[in-house]
Amino acid sequence: ARCGFGEVVYGEGKSAQLISRIAQAQLKNGQSVLVTRVDPSVAEEIDAAFANTKYHSLARTLRVAASPIDDTTDFSESDLHVAVVTAGSTDMNVALEAVETLRWMNVPVRLFEDIGVAGPQRLAAAAPQLCKASALVVVAGMEGALPSVVGGYVSAPIFAVPTSVGYGANLGGVTALLGMLTSCAAGVAVVNIDAGFKGGYMAGMVVRQLINASAAQTSP
Amino acid sequence: ARCGFGEVVYGEGKSAQLISRIAQAQLKNGQSVLVTRVDPSVAEEIDAAFANTKYHSLARTLRVAASPIDDTTDFSESDLHVAVVTAGSTDMNVALEAVETLRWMNVPVRLFEDIGVAGPQRLAAAAPQLCKASALVVVAGMEGALPSVVGGYVSAPIFAVPTSVGYGANLGGVTALLGMLTSCAAGVAVVNIDAGFKGGYMAGMVVRQLINASAAQTSP
Amino acid sequence: ARCGFGEVVYGEGKSAQLISRIAQAQLKNGQSVLVTRVDPSVAEEIDAAFANTKYHSLARTLRVAASPIDDTTDFSESDLHVAVVTAGSTDMNVALEAVETLRWMNVPVRLFEDIGVAGPQRLAAAAPQLCKASALVVVAGMEGALPSVVGGYVSAPIFAVPTSVGYGANLGGVTALLGMLTSCAAGVAVVNIDAGFKGGYMAGMVVRQLINASAAQTSP
Amino acid sequence: ARCGFGEVVYGEGKSAQLISRIAQAQLKNGQSVLVTRVDPSVAEEIDAAFANTKYHSLARTLRVAASPIDDTTDFSESDLHVAVVTAGSTDMNVALEAVETLRWMNVPVRLFEDIGVAGPQRLAAAAPQLCKASALVVVAGMEGALPSVVGGYVSAPIFAVPTSVGYGANLGGVTALLGMLTSCAAGVAVVNIDAGFKGGYMAGMVVRQLINASAAQTSP
Amino acid sequence: ARCGFGEVVYGEGKSAQLISRIAQAQLKNGQSVLVTRVDPSVAEEIDAAFANTKYHSLARTLRVAASPIDDTTDFSESDLHVAVVTAGSTDMNVALEAVETLRWMNVPVRLFEDIGVAGPQRLAAAAPQLCKASALVVVAGMEGALPSVVGGYVSAPIFAVPTSVGYGANLGGVTALLGMLTSCAAGVAVVNIDAGFKGGYMAGMVVRQLINASAAQTSP
Amino acid sequence: ARCGFGEVVYGEGKSAQLISRIAQAQLKNGQSVLVTRVDPSVAEEIDAAFANTKYHSLARTLRVAASPIDDTTDFSESDLHVAVVTAGSTDMNVALEAVETLRWMNVPVRLFEDIGVAGPQRLAAAAPQLCKASALVVVAGMEGALPSVVGGYVSAPIFAVPTSVGYGANLGGVTALLGMLTSCAAGVAVVNIDAGFKGGYMAGMVVRQLINASAAQTSP
Amino acid sequence: ARCGFGEVVYGEGKSAQLISRIAQAQLKNGQSVLVTRVDPSVAEEIDAAFANTKYHSLARTLRVAASPIDDTTDFSESDLHVAVVTAGSTDMNVALEAVETLRWMNVPVRLFEDIGVAGPQRLAAAAPQLCKASALVVVAGMEGALPSVVGGYVSAPIFAVPTSVGYGANLGGVTALLGMLTSCAAGVAVVNIDAGFKGGYMAGMVVRQLINASAAQTSP
Amino acid sequence: ARCGFGEVVYGEGKSAQLISRIAQAQLKNGQSVLVTRVDPSVAEEIDAAFANTKYHSLARTLRVAASPIDDTTDFSESDLHVAVVTAGSTDMNVALEAVETLRWMNVPVRLFEDIGVAGPQRLAAAAPQLCKASALVVVAGMEGALPSVVGGYVSAPIFAVPTSVGYGANLGGVTALLGMLTSCAAGVAVVNIDAGFKGGYMAGMVVRQLINASAAQTSP
Ligand SMILES: Nc1ncnc2c1ncn2[C@@H]1O[C@H](COP(=O)(O)O)[C@@H](O)[C@H]1O
Ligand SMILES: Nc1ncnc2c1ncn2[C@@H]1O[C@H](COP(=O)(O)O)[C@@H](O)[C@H]1O
Ligand SMILES: Nc1ncnc2c1ncn2[C@@H]1O[C@H](COP(=O)(O)O)[C@@H](O)[C@H]1O
Ligand SMILES: Nc1ncnc2c1ncn2[C@@H]1O[C@H](COP(=O)(O)O)[C@@H](O)[C@H]1O
Ligand SMILES: [Mg+2]
Ligand SMILES: [Mg+2]
Ligand SMILES: [Mg+2]
Ligand SMILES: [Mg+2]
Ligand SMILES: [Mg+2]
Ligand SMILES: [Mg+2]
Ligand SMILES: [Mg+2]
Ligand SMILES: [Mg+2]
Repeated sequence: ARCGFGEVVYGEGKSAQLISRIAQAQLKNGQSVLVTRVDPSVAEEIDAAFANTKYHSLARTLRVAASPIDDTTDFSESDLHVAVVTAGSTDMNVALEAVETLRWMNVPVRLFEDIGVAGPQRLAAAAPQLCKASALVVVAGMEGALPSVVGGYVSAPIFAVPTSVGYGANLGGVTALLGMLTSCAAGVAVVNIDAGFKGGYMAGMVVRQLINASAAQTSP
Repeated sequence: ARCGFGEVVYGEGKSAQLISRIAQAQLKNGQSVLVTRVDPSVAEEIDAAFANTKYHSLARTLRVAASPIDDTTDFSESDLHVAVVTAGSTDMNVALEAVETLRWMNVPVRLFEDIGVAGPQRLAAAAPQLCKASALVVVAGMEGALPSVVGGYVSAPIFAVPTSVGYGANLGGVTALLGMLTSCAAGVAVVNIDAGFKGGYMAGMVVRQLINASAAQTSP
Repeated sequence: ARCGFGEVVYGEGKSAQLISRIAQAQLKNGQSVLVTRVDPSVAEEIDAAFANTKYHSLARTLRVAASPIDDTTDFSESDLHVAVVTAGSTDMNVALEAVETLRWMNVPVRLFEDIGVAGPQRLAAAAPQLCKASALVVVAGMEGALPSVVGGYVSAPIFAVPTSVGYGANLGGVTALLGMLTSCAAGVAVVNIDAGFKGGYMAGMVVRQLINASAAQTSP
Repeated sequence: ARCGFGEVVYGEGKSAQLISRIAQAQLKNGQSVLVTRVDPSVAEEIDAAFANTKYHSLARTLRVAASPIDDTTDFSESDLHVAVVTAGSTDMNVALEAVETLRWMNVPVRLFEDIGVAGPQRLAAAAPQLCKASALVVVAGMEGALPSVVGGYVSAPIFAVPTSVGYGANLGGVTALLGMLTSCAAGVAVVNIDAGFKGGYMAGMVVRQLINASAAQTSP
Repeated sequence: ARCGFGEVVYGEGKSAQLISRIAQAQLKNGQSVLVTRVDPSVAEEIDAAFANTKYHSLARTLRVAASPIDDTTDFSESDLHVAVVTAGSTDMNVALEAVETLRWMNVPVRLFEDIGVAGPQRLAAAAPQLCKASALVVVAGMEGALPSVVGGYVSAPIFAVPTSVGYGANLGGVTALLGMLTSCAAGVAVVNIDAGFKGGYMAGMVVRQLINASAAQTSP
Repeated sequence: ARCGFGEVVYGEGKSAQLISRIAQAQLKNGQSVLVTRVDPSVAEEIDAAFANTKYHSLARTLRVAASPIDDTTDFSESDLHVAVVTAGSTDMNVALEAVETLRWMNVPVRLFEDIGVAGPQRLAAAAPQLCKASALVVVAGMEGALPSVVGGYVSAPIFAVPTSVGYGANLGGVTALLGMLTSCAAGVAVVNIDAGFKGGYMAGMVVRQLINASAAQTSP
Repeated sequence: ARCGFGEVVYGEGKSAQLISRIAQAQLKNGQSVLVTRVDPSVAEEIDAAFANTKYHSLARTLRVAASPIDDTTDFSESDLHVAVVTAGSTDMNVALEAVETLRWMNVPVRLFEDIGVAGPQRLAAAAPQLCKASALVVVAGMEGALPSVVGGYVSAPIFAVPTSVGYGANLGGVTALLGMLTSCAAGVAVVNIDAGFKGGYMAGMVVRQLINASAAQTSP
Repeated sequence: ARCGFGEVVYGEGKSAQLISRIAQAQLKNGQSVLVTRVDPSVAEEIDAAFANTKYHSLARTLRVAASPIDDTTDFSESDLHVAVVTAGSTDMNVALEAVETLRWMNVPVRLFEDIGVAGPQRLAAAAPQLCKASALVVVAGMEGALPSVVGGYVSAPIFAVPTSVGYGANLGGVTALLGMLTSCAAGVAVVNIDAGFKGGYMAGMVVRQLINASAAQTSP
């Protein structure tokens, strides 16, 4: 595979048959499969055709693998990992797309829900935990201020994901997108609106390299 | 006067003669004069024609009054007042336009410089002071996140002033403007880009009413 | 509570269960509850679970309180209050969101319907009444000219709420928003498109402070 | 000539020679000449070459005619005429372009300065005069509210001219343009930003037809 | 009535009851009624309540009058009239809103269908007829080029109505709108996207004045 | 060379030395050189270093060749050629960039000046000539209507070049660009604003293939 | 016919009756008919009325001809032809509209599916085949990078068709459109978003001329 | 220091005195200093006041350190490093800002110039080298296609920097920005227009963590 991970399938507008065919091919290739933006009905149809699948109805992701998918194995807080942070509960879908992407990449991930800008105490309280991550995905809608604020606490790279949540001057997520791009914090890069997958993938690439380096270290 | 304050003169593109004529008329009317967006050379010319003027070269405001203008009279922290807050040093010009407007309105004002989003400790430290204000003017450029964050600490109305400071996706202040309008904080209203005058004027109207109510109270 | 009022719940996309849970917690905290953008079916479901609720089907707001909600108590015209003004009948929904917010804040409110720009006589006739308010919420769609015009009559702060009412060059409310931001009247600040809640909240904060100051005065 | 008036020359970026050549040709054709957007230096050069010219330094228009240009001939208020109205003093240049266009079309014109929205009394006072015009040109910058308001008083067609005067959310005149297009008044049509010429020309066409009809009437 | 015509009712989002009530009031006032943007079901309900109505299902206009509405009375070509011109068949709905408005204003109107820019011969052939109109309403979508081209043939004022017909770079009519505003033809003013009513109303005001002048003339 | 023509050098912001070095390399490669957007002073410096150059001060193009550059060799009207058409005199610079590009490609070119939309007779008169071209470059500013209209007369492919000429709603050429893209004529494709080079290059590729095919034909 | 091909009918919003009437007229005129953007139900209704039709359900095109429509006749790779290229599978509908247009024009066409930018090897592998086309139609959504990249391999004119496929910053195809217009490749011109028909039509005009020239050559 | 690197100073609009004062403070703090967007004259003035400085006139960066700044120490190709890639020569300034940022962070960096999309062979040739980098900064103007294409070859995270280079539909870099955000390649995140510093800083954070992990490994 081009980069260690199987190619991700963008599910929007693809039929269950087409997705199944692609998944079959990737499995044969020794890759585990991630499909994003999958509707429940499509997922159900695909699920029937494969032994090991996981559909996440909020993230709308579907994974297909050669062996059972188990996301319960815990990791210790000191492990290398990604922190996924959401501003509000309405940003959860997008954040969970990032989380599922990271699980599929086999990169440990911690989720911090609902520590948006409007409650600075909640954010300040979480800060010591956020500082332990080697990369962060920060998901926020409306004015998209959260990455700037998180950037004031941490020193790892932040991947900001604007969401289309909001109304009026939010302009379907464009306002959050522009705000994140002009962030006064230096360590913030941005992906497309609602692109939880991309945010997770970028952070996953960063931490995967660190895990590999550590693995090299401990295996003499 | 329509609202207790003299009408403000927008100086951009007006000649020294024209401004002087308007100022003359307002003084005669018993109003003290505030002119905004005045170039130094224009200010100098006007200054020569009046006994009591104050030009602020950063704010680019000019005031003309019937008696000497004295902004040094201190006020105690417990007094009713407006807090003017800036995100970065580049926002000072706009903030000072607000400050001069408030002084002209005879409303006490405290200035908090450079407590932007990137340094959350500075902001948290200032929070107890900010909470003492009865109205706030928050001036910020780039992504314009500061009003949202300040809104997490205070309970008085915030007048957000976006500035045109920044580049690229900042779009000449439009990004900050849109971000402030979609602020997740409830107590934030917005004025035009770089409109320090308007921010100060709104906050001044709020606090002036409170001062008048208090004055009524103490003068039996 | 952070600012004397309970935190407002944005109802869009939240289930009846989730809202009920939040409301329960706020009531326990001694706060009365305001939920905005609530669909009738959701409201009905929540209503069944609480003793004292008020759903306003035009404003689409739901209030939950510890004791019966009574908005009929009259206030005299000389009382401190907010004026909520609409340009046309199509702006009523947004205006009523502001009104309900003010009632929830326990701030007296008067509603002036349909005194838009196209009928200057109606506006001129209402002007003496408008001048009695300590803060105004002006709701207007299409070109959003009304706040500028009202600003020519009153000296209290105006909170302008653009609505998405209109078509074509109205651009879903963006035209009214931009127009209000560039208002030639000094005493106008703006909130997001259709954000009746925000307009009401800002005006409520202003007048609440005045009421408190007066209360302090009269209770020796 | 195509429509009774000579073709107008857009002077921007044209040399004095080129303009002179065009003017020569039009004069020969029996047309009097109107050139818009002419810099003083260019105007001076052209003036030297023709017997009868009038350059208006504020309007930046240049007229060239076969006989002396005399705009002093008065007309009675009861005559058919166009009213040109400005919101603020900064809109005068554009308004004067309209005025000069009408003079060149030999259509009587009355100028109403500085009766913007912020001073409703001034506008109400002027209303009875405005009602005597058979067509109006309303020039306004910032939020461009004036045509809507004037439309509340008059029943003749209004040609709205947005100006680029303003800053920030004014977007170089686009905000005024959009506002005028979404005017809640039915009798308002709009021309390009700063296009005083076009506004004057449209109004002139309307009133010229009326004058011709009246002339036909009185000359049996 | 303010301007000789009854006030037009914008039907969008108004109930049959509300419209009926307004219509009742206007009839009582001696005005005939025009309602725009009326759905068939709403129209049917209103129709049942009044003696004399006309609903135009393409224009989506409803008229209510004191006496039977008869649009069949012919007028001679030499009469003062408005020409309504469409670029393509998809622009007909908007054009018919203009036509119905003019009929309601009792102003003669001729309709020229489908003489868009792509077929220059059709336009050239119609030109001599178009030149007989005292005002024109030109309705066009896509790039909105038709008013510029028509402006090359006629000398009466043109009111351009951009339509939202098209896709992609058409941007919902904004492209046609901007194109019409920057028309190289001098005699073109523009109204809002799809605003057939406004285009008709403006042209109707122009021709109504001419008809009145002529009537004055012929009735000694 | 990749496509039979030397690669074109974009001169903006390149020094005379850099351009000379590139030109030297291309000449050595057997290619003749075209540099666009060259300031006169830069051109003069380069001219001194090469034996055979041609600088066109309006087009701001510089050509460098191995043998003297001669554009005077006439071609008969019946030859395969490109027609370059301009709407107004202000579009000439961009049109000449197209012309020089075609000369450098050794493709015959005819220039039709100033036959814009406002004068339909001029265009109709030129139509029979335009129909002889195998490809057209149509350059127009303001509303960019000309390609649509020309498309009504010819059957060869049209390459539309919007220019930034205009003001206000012209939006620096974006209005013309959008208008051309939504042209109701089928045979119109568009290049970037002011990109005379690209328009000429596309048309040149089309006609060059035809010339080559003809050459193959005549040389047995 | 104006240009050798019958006029194309834009089916959107047209009834089966209307389309049938137009088709009838064109057939009578000796033209074969192409209708774009036709819904299946409309197509079915028309199909019943004509002897020889072809509806393509993905392209949503309907063709009507005097004799049976047969697209199976093969052409040799060395023949003059157009290459239609898609970036991803979601761009197929638009590409097939181009293909059907070319078949209707009787111009040979080869389709290259899914050789988008993300897989450079696939594109490099296809390059030698792409170079054999005399004109290319390149269809791409998202960032619209494909035409630039293809332009690095081929020397024939490219007609780029942006599609509305994507989300967020894709802005409904506007991002791809703008990207294609600013392509660093010289030989790229652009048509409207999703305008497969226009892309095919432009390329077809280019290759049709070449075929005609060749035909002239071989038939002595 | 917050994150291992001294805080970067944004030089735009800051005086030499102010910058010197900040630099002094940072040096005292044990941090080396990076100032971006510094004009030569300002740099010269600061240089005189410090022992160890480096000004890069193309990058417009100024560095101040406690000991001499030496960027010549070579690193072997196998070392952990960042690759900085430019599309064209006009993107060099922005790329060099990234390079200087990385040098200041003490992170090895390799620069790949001018391997833009238009020359696919150059890019394919560079691909094996690009694959050795642990993070990439890809700088491109115009349509900003390069990151998508590079993303087809490498598996490390890409930080895309759009530049404002181009004209017309490039919209001052906004087109490149939007294109990069909608990239079909998964491993691309984006920073602000012309923000070479941010691109370098993000990549530097990624590789610095890897270097630190390796250093821990080799130092037992
Ligand atoms: N949710 C998503 N958002 C953006 N890109 C995605 C998403 N899911 C998959 N992709 C990208 O789309 C490519 C697959 O597209 P496709 O071939 O249409 O399935 C993958 O290589 C990913 O880079
Ligand atoms: N800096 C400013 N920004 C926005 N509005 C202003 C400013 N200064 C003055 N104004 C407004 O402009 C009006 C005066 O405009 P003018 O008559 O042109 O001097 C005042 O009534 C103020 O409301
Ligand atoms: N189709 C329409 N487009 C734009 N404005 C309209 C339309 N129909 C009515 N109006 C205007 O809307 C006003 C009436 O609005 P309303 O009071 O809501 O019925 C009238 O005075 C007209 O100027
Ligand atoms: N005036 C122009 N407008 C747009 N693109 C141009 C222009 N001149 C040259 N180019 C393109 O820019 C490329 C050369 O860029 P450069 O390597 O910077 O000289 C050429 O291959 C052309 O495709
Ligand atoms: Mg947020
Ligand atoms: Mg900020
Ligand atoms: Mg309004
Ligand atoms: Mg105005
Ligand atoms: Mg059209
Ligand atoms: Mg044009
Ligand atoms: Mg693509
Ligand atoms: Mg590029």
